[in-house]
Order: sequence, then structure tokens, then C-alpha cells
Amino acid sequence: MSRLECSVRNEIGDRGRPGKFQSEHRYHDTRKPILKTQIMRKLAVNILLAIILTASGAAVVTAQASAGPQLETARRNLMPVPASVNWRAGRLPVSKAFTVAFTGQTDERLRKYVFRALRRLEGRTVLEFSRDAANEPATATISIETRSTGNAIPRLGDDESYQLDISADQAKLTAPNTVGAMRGLETFLQLLEGDKDGFYFPAVSIMDRPRFLWRGLMIDSARHFQSREVLKRNLYAMAAVKLNVLHWHLTEDQGFRIETKKFPELHLQGSDGLFYTQNEIREIINYAAERGIRVMPEFDMPGHATAWLVSHPEIGSAPGTYKIERRPGIFDPTMDPTNEKTYKLLGPSFAEMAKLFPDAYMHIGGDENEGKQWNANPRIQAFMKKEGIKDNHELQTYFNKRILKFLQKNGKIMMGWDEIFQPDLPKDIVIHSWRGQKALAEAAKQGYQGVLSNGYYIDLAQPAYRHYVVDPLPADTTLSPEEQKRVLGGEATMWAEWVSAETIDSRIWPRTAAIAERLWSPREVNNVDDMYRRLANIEWRLEELGLTHRRNQEMMLRRLAAGRDISAHQTLVSIIEPVKEYRRYKERRQTMLSPLTGLIDAARPDAPAAREFNKAVDEIAAGVKVRENLARIRAMVNEWRAAEEELQATVDNSPALAEAKQLAVNLASLNRVLLESLDSLARGSRRNAEWRAEKMKALDEIAKPAAALEFALVTHARKLVEAASADRA
Amino acid sequence: MSRLECSVRNEIGDRGRPGKFQSEHRYHDTRKPILKTQIMRKLAVNILLAIILTASGAAVVTAQASAGPQLETARRNLMPVPASVNWRAGRLPVSKAFTVAFTGQTDERLRKYVFRALRRLEGRTVLEFSRDAANEPATATISIETRSTGNAIPRLGDDESYQLDISADQAKLTAPNTVGAMRGLETFLQLLEGDKDGFYFPAVSIMDRPRFLWRGLMIDSARHFQSREVLKRNLYAMAAVKLNVLHWHLTEDQGFRIETKKFPELHLQGSDGLFYTQNEIREIINYAAERGIRVMPEFDMPGHATAWLVSHPEIGSAPGTYKIERRPGIFDPTMDPTNEKTYKLLGPSFAEMAKLFPDAYMHIGGDENEGKQWNANPRIQAFMKKEGIKDNHELQTYFNKRILKFLQKNGKIMMGWDEIFQPDLPKDIVIHSWRGQKALAEAAKQGYQGVLSNGYYIDLAQPAYRHYVVDPLPADTTLSPEEQKRVLGGEATMWAEWVSAETIDSRIWPRTAAIAERLWSPREVNNVDDMYRRLANIEWRLEELGLTHRRNQEMMLRRLAAGRDISAHQTLVSIIEPVKEYRRYKERRQTMLSPLTGLIDAARPDAPAAREFNKAVDEIAAGVKVRENLARIRAMVNEWRAAEEELQATVDNSPALAEAKQLAVNLASLNRVLLESLDSLARGSRRNAEWRAEKMKALDEIAKPAAALEFALVTHARKLVEAASADRA
Repeated sequence: MSRLECSVRNEIGDRGRPGKFQSEHRYHDTRKPILKTQIMRKLAVNILLAIILTASGAAVVTAQASAGPQLETARRNLMPVPASVNWRAGRLPVSKAFTVAFTGQTDERLRKYVFRALRRLEGRTVLEFSRDAANEPATATISIETRSTGNAIPRLGDDESYQLDISADQAKLTAPNTVGAMRGLETFLQLLEGDKDGFYFPAVSIMDRPRFLWRGLMIDSARHFQSREVLKRNLYAMAAVKLNVLHWHLTEDQGFRIETKKFPELHLQGSDGLFYTQNEIREIINYAAERGIRVMPEFDMPGHATAWLVSHPEIGSAPGTYKIERRPGIFDPTMDPTNEKTYKLLGPSFAEMAKLFPDAYMHIGGDENEGKQWNANPRIQAFMKKEGIKDNHELQTYFNKRILKFLQKNGKIMMGWDEIFQPDLPKDIVIHSWRGQKALAEAAKQGYQGVLSNGYYIDLAQPAYRHYVVDPLPADTTLSPEEQKRVLGGEATMWAEWVSAETIDSRIWPRTAAIAERLWSPREVNNVDDMYRRLANIEWRLEELGLTHRRNQEMMLRRLAAGRDISAHQTLVSIIEPVKEYRRYKERRQTMLSPLTGLIDAARPDAPAAREFNKAVDEIAAGVKVRENLARIRAMVNEWRAAEEELQATVDNSPALAEAKQLAVNLASLNRVLLESLDSLARGSRRNAEWRAEKMKALDEIAKPAAALEFALVTHARKLVEAASADRA
Repeated sequence: MSRLECSVRNEIGDRGRPGKFQSEHRYHDTRKPILKTQIMRKLAVNILLAIILTASGAAVVTAQASAGPQLETARRNLMPVPASVNWRAGRLPVSKAFTVAFTGQTDERLRKYVFRALRRLEGRTVLEFSRDAANEPATATISIETRSTGNAIPRLGDDESYQLDISADQAKLTAPNTVGAMRGLETFLQLLEGDKDGFYFPAVSIMDRPRFLWRGLMIDSARHFQSREVLKRNLYAMAAVKLNVLHWHLTEDQGFRIETKKFPELHLQGSDGLFYTQNEIREIINYAAERGIRVMPEFDMPGHATAWLVSHPEIGSAPGTYKIERRPGIFDPTMDPTNEKTYKLLGPSFAEMAKLFPDAYMHIGGDENEGKQWNANPRIQAFMKKEGIKDNHELQTYFNKRILKFLQKNGKIMMGWDEIFQPDLPKDIVIHSWRGQKALAEAAKQGYQGVLSNGYYIDLAQPAYRHYVVDPLPADTTLSPEEQKRVLGGEATMWAEWVSAETIDSRIWPRTAAIAERLWSPREVNNVDDMYRRLANIEWRLEELGLTHRRNQEMMLRRLAAGRDISAHQTLVSIIEPVKEYRRYKERRQTMLSPLTGLIDAARPDAPAAREFNKAVDEIAAGVKVRENLARIRAMVNEWRAAEEELQATVDNSPALAEAKQLAVNLASLNRVLLESLDSLARGSRRNAEWRAEKMKALDEIAKPAAALEFALVTHARKLVEAASADRA
């Protein structure tokens, strides 16, 4: 990356993720959500005029919204959408006589998975099933056939396919192995429906298999330590949406989170006591394996390694002592690749970790080493000269090759961020791309396998569709079929600067389900509205697994309001969102020790009422259900107005909400703008240019973040103002 | 207990708790919530007439409700209320410059407790404090002085007193030891307030110490296994309300929940794999000790012991095999006290458990042995004859004496339910009373110490005030001061027939905070309204500790409604409650394997809107704020009416809510009754006897439980009907 980019991103605490400029570039390329004012004016005005002229009558435009009934029926609540779905007539009722039969090769893992699935089904239906196995496949409610058990510890390339056939008499799930059956069981659970006649599974034939083999979630346990409980419930949710890799970010500037027997000073001095014992690591690996999920550890080096240097300053590239880093950002401390002591520490460490983690892959990070300590160290400079190493990138490659030997010796395959990519490394390493599809494609052309994370940075508080539209292999790819195979998949990345046990679920879910669909389902499954429809469903279903993404919001609001009524705050968080990308770093300076209990932490991406408002405006612009949508908008605005006074009162008396004062002011201002626009549209009267300018200026003010939060409907509010003041001649 | 009582309670699955009849007797004695119809009629009518006659004007009755401003100021949000509180002028502001200093003898336990307290304070204030200890007592925001560290593992009788002095400059907490400082810190945290000028602690001098030494919560981990996570968050909450004993019910008919090294078959065959390893037990003991809480285990015997007999049928009193019990209730399997094999198993078991649990007390249960197997076993009958044992109670005493020897040998003091009480046992045993204060007093007179649980059965879904009014040493006690000392305190009992990890918090909290106050605060702290005011505050504060009693309700409703809008259900659960006492056992037959995800599991005792309604009716009857209360009731009824239609639609389409159909019908019917009454009162017109009879009949129908749920406002609805039809001459 260029120095210019680097300095900008440095300031805002970026580190090898899609930076502000990059990501704007990237997302604007893939989606064009905003119509140009000019076009908008014409379009909206024409439609609105037409409607206003027929306001008294029945001539209302009734075109279907894009995710119409067909799609709803085709996909019901399935997420990810299977490769092939054929609905049949009929339904399989669910009663307390529900039974399961196993045939073929069955292992304990599958039986436990089925046991848990049945408990979830009981939980939803409030029916108690018999615990006795029905070993009569012909009469069981669901018969599960697995041809082999497969790998007890999942591996890359495991066959995850399954076939699910449901008739009015029986469900039949067939899979080549246990992990395929697990995937099929999750589909089965998502099929449950109910109506006045009771619970049932619709008759269907599903053939399913993943599009990509590598479908991961990276959890950063280093910047903020994450308890086993947090990891477990998220692993449970990963399985529910068919993700299969937990990429576990374990060492960082801010913490060394894993017990080492050989060098216990590493975790004892580098973690504030917040680390996983090796038994706990095994517990998590086992928990993941029981859900068909691989666990790949990451030990980030040579940068992002301050926590190593706290107890081993001798392997740092600058003299002196090191302290656990408390700030977010990119920092100078870097391992010294020219010092043999570095390898004396790393060699045995990798050997120990290689034994602990059964997965074939090991991630060494490698990102965001800016080489400042290397540049400043004469001994390192002398070494480079002597060895003919011409720049820091080559020096890092030298380092990587030494590390690679340790990994190979322990039977592991190396994975690292884009920066490790260097054509003379062996072809079995895996490139993890924060740079994007282009970098990934380039590596693939040169014979390297890769995994995409650019576009899947869920820490950046972007709406789900932003991630959903990112395809590791876009339709216009120029890669040959052989090269395409090297694009293994993708990973959502939960960087943990701003997440606690209370909030992490809400930063991962439900949006990661949209990414999971991108990585599992056919490329053609890409209707954003239908994705959101199904996401709303999976959102509450995931909480049955113990996740807290939704229920914690109100708890946090209650604490902020110190017991006062929170309905006004609920209204507020339904239309505001945390600022996107890296703006939070600038707008609300915090450290790793700061409380994550503010309004920004309670707020979530994809603010639901804002999305509803925006959709209504878009539909009006598209001539869809114009009158209904206008009425819907008015009802929403009335609700927001009703919250104004109470919000103001609570904010005034709750010091923890003091930073939200401006938001309360802006809400009132926004409501005025919207009401005037609606009134004008309803009357069919045109507002003049002065009015328009005034409202646009007001919206500019409203658009400014306060407390690192922003109204998620300003763009669409502008459209309404535009329409109210548009020339209707 | 008599055979008659026994058979009734047997049928409904009672086991040594305050049975239906007993508890009705007991509670009606201590509280008279319902005015007689006759009196009510006169009173309400007179007041209402007076109001109606002045309806246009200002002559509204404005007498203070019982928990008026004085009490609110005196107690703020403190719970339990300290022994002595003297408010001063001024306030100590809270800023990010908040610091703590320690003086005297300080241990790691205290520093960790303070660390956690500061994180909670940060969480509420969204301020980041420095992590560096301010070791200048004179200038720290709070200076904590502990004269000694006290016992690292808490013991009965530890001095828990503290003194807290807050001025505008500083808070000073003084305690004889660490555990006293912990109690004081919780008071300190409860004092936090905020207004437009920021967060602050009001100036105050508090001298505090508990009224009773034994303030416990019993958690039954046997009927439903409770995870460590559940136990930990509840221990955390216990410390927040100054409880100091976890009584851990570990073995039952339904499960043997603890690893034994000597006889692993006990937990392996008796637990479905759901047990605590000894390391996990130590983890919990340590977690409790860090919060100043003792952990006393219970091994219930000779009855309630089926799970022992699964692997050791030879010590049962009847031949044959035994299976883990799945039903609730009292069961026949009983250990054979005449068989030496029994003691060969129990002796080493108690020795092992005595080493594992550091507490001096060990609970042996002893309740509800009905002796059926003993009566039926000729060998046991022959033994009794030979040894001159004249009845089963004597036989159980013989058994207890044998057990007592094991305990004494291992340095433990025996505790057991009322049934173990037998005058020739040593005076240091502790009687745990489900029978009540009378039994407790009787034991005290004979020199025995006792702990009360009658009245604190939180599994019975009773409102908090029912527990609050129960005093282990009522004002009219006839015990001498010396005898009174033998009444050590009390324990809330969380029997676990109907609780899961999702619901247990809501069955314990916030009501147990009211019991904690009864056991800590002076007897004179007994204003029910003010207790409820403070309980509402502590309810949301407890969730900062990870508890889920409030947030899980909506999650459960969402699951029941399968993603449909739940606002109508929220309205419903704000006025319905689970049936009280043991009615659930009858009305909704379930086993230990049934899902606990129904509407009854989402509903909670002390339904808030019902309480509000009832209070408004009571205030009207007392002539307090009559017009406001009538308006408030009308607003509530209007809200309930608004929910009718939606509720009906959701219930019709959500099979999991099918059992709630009658509730939806009843809600509509209730609303009609209330509206007609309100209309009549507003008009000042008198309804005739026919109308009254019709409405009363309707209310009789509405009062009937449906899905084991009941409207918690029918009694007060009757009062309104009564008033509307009362003779106003």
C-alpha cells in the first residue's frame, strides 16, 4: 500500500483491512444505491404527481416489490439457500411422536448433533419427544442415512453434501458422512413451519453442497479476550448457517492469549491473566469438531507482536522494554528476523502449537509490518546488506521462509495475509486476502490458493448487503476453471477492538449469516431484499442457541437510561447506526480498557426502522405501492415524533447518555423536515427553492455523526425533500 | 405432616415444602391483602361518589401513597437497606479521574473485587478510569481500609460489617476484613446516581451489619442440571444483594451431579453425563469465596436418592433395579439403613466430599422419606424389632446417627430438614425448616440452631411480597435473646423441576433480593411498596452481572411467536403469571425431559402491569389520587384492548401458543368487564344486581388458569365491578 494511504489509515488505526478509501472504492463499484438527484427528481415527481392526482381513488400502483411472493415461497426461511430445492405438495406434521432412525455408519458425534437438534425442535414446538431411538427407518419421522462417519476432526475438503427428501409420511436425510448430515439437519430445522393446524415440515426435495470449501469466521480473541462461552455459542451459530472454519486470532500487540508450556512467560506476562489454557483450547477444538468446524489458529508475526516482546524483548527489533499495547492501531514493535534468538523462541513454540491444534493449516498473519524498527536498527540494516536483502518486503519473506520450515517440520501448511505472497514460496501456502478479489485472482493465476476477507470485515458496522454482494469469484472472473478452484472461499473477520462479551454477538450476527450464504449458495442467489427477509427470520432463531445479539440491546439501553423507560431509546436505535468503517476510531477515541457500554455499543448495523423507511422511499421512487408507502412513512415519523420529548428528558437526566444529546436534537429536526415534505406531497403543492435549500442544509447537519452514531436514513430523507420541491411541470 | 396432607401434597408432587394448605394458612396469617366485600363496597362507593361529584373540579384527594417521598429519599436504591443510614448534604462527583486507595491489610481477593466493582461502575457511567492504583488515601475518590483480610474461605460468623462515609470530597469505606469491604462496596455501587450535572454519590454515613449470619440461596442442580455459567452469574448476583451461602443440592431421584473418584459409577450412571467434575466444583467454591459466599453441599438421603441406587441397587430398601427418575414428586426408593453395605458406600463418599468442600457444614437432606420400602421389607422390619426401633422416624434417626459419625470424623457439622430433628442428636446440628417459624422456635428452645426456608420457596411463583413479609424471628417471638441467636437466618430455595438455563434467573431474580433484604436488614424495614420500588431498580442493575431474568423473556416470546410481532404477547405477560404454589404440577403435566419454553416459562411472578393495576385499584379504595388512578386504569385497559386482535391472530397461527387460546379469549372478556365498570364509574351511574352477577360470573371464568397461567388482577377487577354496582345511597 502507498505511504499516503498508509498514513491516513495509520491515523485512524487501520491495519491491513479494507481502508476507508479502498473500501469506498470497492463498495461503490459493486453497488450503486443512490440515484442521481436529477434522475430522482424526474422520476419521483412523475410518480408522485400521478398518485396525488388519483389520491381519492383506487388507481394505486401495485407493482410487486423485487422480493415478491415467488421468491419467498422458493426460499422460505432457508439460509444459506441450498444448491437445489424442489418443493412438493404436502406436509409432514410434527407431533410429540416425532422419532429419528439412523442407518449406515453412525458415530457418536452425529447422535449428539441429532440430540441437540431435537432439543431445539422441542424448544420451538413446546412438545416433548421420546428419547428412545426409533430403530425402524421405515416408520421414523426422520430417517438419517450416513454412508461413512468421515473425519472425526474436520478437514478442508470434507464432503459436506447431503440430500433431504420430505414427504407427507417421512423425512429422509442422506449424506456421505456425519458432517454432511449435520449440514442437512440445519436445513431441516430451518424448514419447520407452523399454522393453525400445527407444526409441520413442507414436502420438498433438496440436493445441496457448498459452493466454496472454506467458509470461515475469524474471531480476534487478542484485542479483547473472548470467553469460551462466547466462542461456543458463536461456534454453535456458525454450524447453524453452515460455516466450517473458526480462524482464531490468538496473539496481538494487545495480548498473548494462549498457554504455552515451553515458554509460560509469554502468556503470563502478555495477557493480563486473560488466556486460554491448553485444556480450554482442546475443549473449543472438540466443541467445534462436534459441529463440523475446523479450528485454525493464528499467531500474527513479525508485526502485531508486542505481546510476545513483553516477556522476550530480546527478539524485538528495537532495544528496550515492551508493554502490552492498550490502544487500537498499527504499532512499531516487530520481531527481529536477523536474530537467531527469534527462531529459538518461535521454533519450539510452533512445535508446541502444532501438536495442540489438529488442523493442517496454521495462520502466521504477516500483515501491516511497516518496518520502522527494521529501518532504524543498524544491525538489521547490516544484515540485509550482507545477505543481499534489498527491502523490508524481502526481509519479511526471509523471515517467512524460516517460519515455513518450522511449519513444514510439524506437518502444517502456512496461511497468511496478502503481504506474505511471494512467488518463490511453495504452492501449498494459502493467501488470505484483505486486498480483494483482484489480489486473490492474481495469486490464483500464479498457482496459489486463497481465501477472501476483503468485503467481509464485519467489525466495520456496515449493513449486511454490503457483504452479501461481495463474491470471491465474481461472474466476470477471468480465471480458468482450474484457477477458480484455487479460490477456496472466504472468511468474515471479527476484529475485536470494540467488542465485549455483551456486544460481540451483535457485531457478528445476523450479518454473518448473509456472508455464510454467499459462501455456500450458488452465485445466482443474490436478491438483497429476499436476503433481508430471511435474515430477519434467522436473527431470532439464532438466539435459541444462546446468542445475545438481540436481547442484549434492551439490557444495555436500560443500563444507559438507569432504569428509566427506554421506549424512546428503542425508537432511536431503530434508526441510528454506528458510524461505518474506521470512523469510530476517530470520532470516539477509546482504548482496549474502555467500557463498551455506550449508546454506540447498544446500536447495531442495519437499523430496522431506517431500512423500512428507506425501502418505502425507494418503492415510492419505483412507483410501487406509493400511497401505502407514504402512509407508512407518515406513521413512522409520527412514532418518532412521539419519542422526541421523552428522549430529550432521559438524555438530560442520564449522564451516560449525555453524548447523545445532539442525536435527540437531530431527531426533532429530522422529524420536522420529513413532516413538511410529507405534508407538501400530500397536498400536491410544490415547495420553493429556498425551502429546499433550508431542508437540505438541515439534513447536512443531521447527517453529521454524534457520539459516533448516525441516522441511517438521511440519504432517503433527501430524496423526499427533493420530491417535495421538485418541478412537477 | 399428617397422612391427609401428605396424600394431597403427594398427588401434586410436593416434597417437604410449604404445601398448598399450609402455605395458604401461613400467608393469610401474615398478610390480609383483600378487604371484605362488604367493607369494600361501602368504602369504595363513598370515595368514588365523592370524586365523581367533584369530577369537574380540583378537589381531588391527594393523600400520599404509603411509600411516599420520605421513604424514597431515606432508602434511595439501597437493597438490602443498611442498619443505619444518615444522609448528609453534598455529593461526590464521579469522573474519569476516579481512583481507589487501599490501607490496612489488603488481600488479592479484595483487589479483584474492587477491580470488578470499578468495571461495573465504568459500564454504567461509560467512563474509563485509570487502572493504576492511587496509593494516596487522602486524595483517592474512595479509600478502603480493611483491618485484616479475614478468612480466605468464608465461614459462618465472619464479621460482615462495614462503615461507609461519603462526603463531597471522598468516600471512605472501613471494614474489619475483606468480606465486610465487599458488602460495603455493593452498597457503594447501589448509591450511584446521575442527573443533568453528571454521575455522583450522595453524601452519607452508613453503619451496616447483617441481622442474620446465614443468608442463603439453595440451588437444585439435580432435577435440572445447572451449568457453571448459571451458577456463577447467580453467585455474582447473590453477592450484589449480600447473600452469603450457596446451598448446593447435588443429589436427587433425578440425578447424581458430582464426580466421585472413589465410586465413579455413581455419577457416570446417575447423571446422563450431566455432572460437575471435582475441578469444576473447586472452581465454583473459589468463585463463591471470592465473593464472600460459603458453599454448602447437600446429599439428600435416605429418600430422594434414586440416582444413588441406579449404580448401587444393593443399598436400596427394595430389591430390583433402579432408573433415573424423570417425573417430579416424591418417590419410594430409599437407602437401606439396616444394610452395612449402605455405610460402606456412604462412609468413603462423605470422606471424599468432606475434603472437596471446605465449608464446616454439610446438608444431608432427610426430607420426605415416606418409608414405603421400609414397611414392605421383612428384613428391615426384623431389624427394627431386634434393635427396638419402634417406627420409621426412629429408624431414620438411627440412620442419621450413623451418618453423623461420618461427618464428625471428617470435621463437619450436620444440617438437615426438619425431619432430622431428634432431641438426642448433638446440639451443634442445624435444623433447616420447611415447616416454619414455629418448628424453628421449638428447636431453638431445645438448644438447636436453625435456618428458615418456609416462606422462601421461590419456585412456587409467588409474588415477592409473600416472601418479604416472612421473618425468621417475627416481632412477637417468645424466644429468649439466647434462643433467638440460634435462629441463624434463612434460605431461598430454587427447586429445579421447571427451570432451565434460559429461565432459572427469572425464577430467582429479582424476588430473591427481597428475601436477602429480610435476612440482612432490620426487622422494621418492611414497607412493601417501597420494597417493590427498589426491587424494580435492582432488577435491571442485576443484569449487568450477566443475569438474564429480564432479557430472556422477549427472546422466549419471539421463539413462541416464530418471528411474528410480539408486542401483544408482551402485553399479555405483563398481566398474567404462572399459577402459584404446586398448581403447575397439576395443570401442566411435564417431566424433567420436557421443554421449558412455553408461555408459562416466559411469564414471571409479579406481572408488572397487573401490579400497577392492582395498586391503582387499592389506592382508589383508599381515596388516594382517585381520578388519576381511574384514568391510569382506563389507559391500561385501552392498551390491553389494542392487543386483543393481534394476540388472537398470533395465537391462531403459532402452534406453540395454541395452549394460550383461552387466555386470548379471557383477555377480551376481561377488557369488556373492566370497561363497563369504568364507564359506569365515570358516569356515576349504578349497575344493577343482574349486571353485577353476570360480570362476577365472567370473572370467575377469567380466573380459571389456562396453560397453567392466570390473570393476576382478577381480585381487583372484582373490586371494580363491586364498586360499579354498589349501593351509593
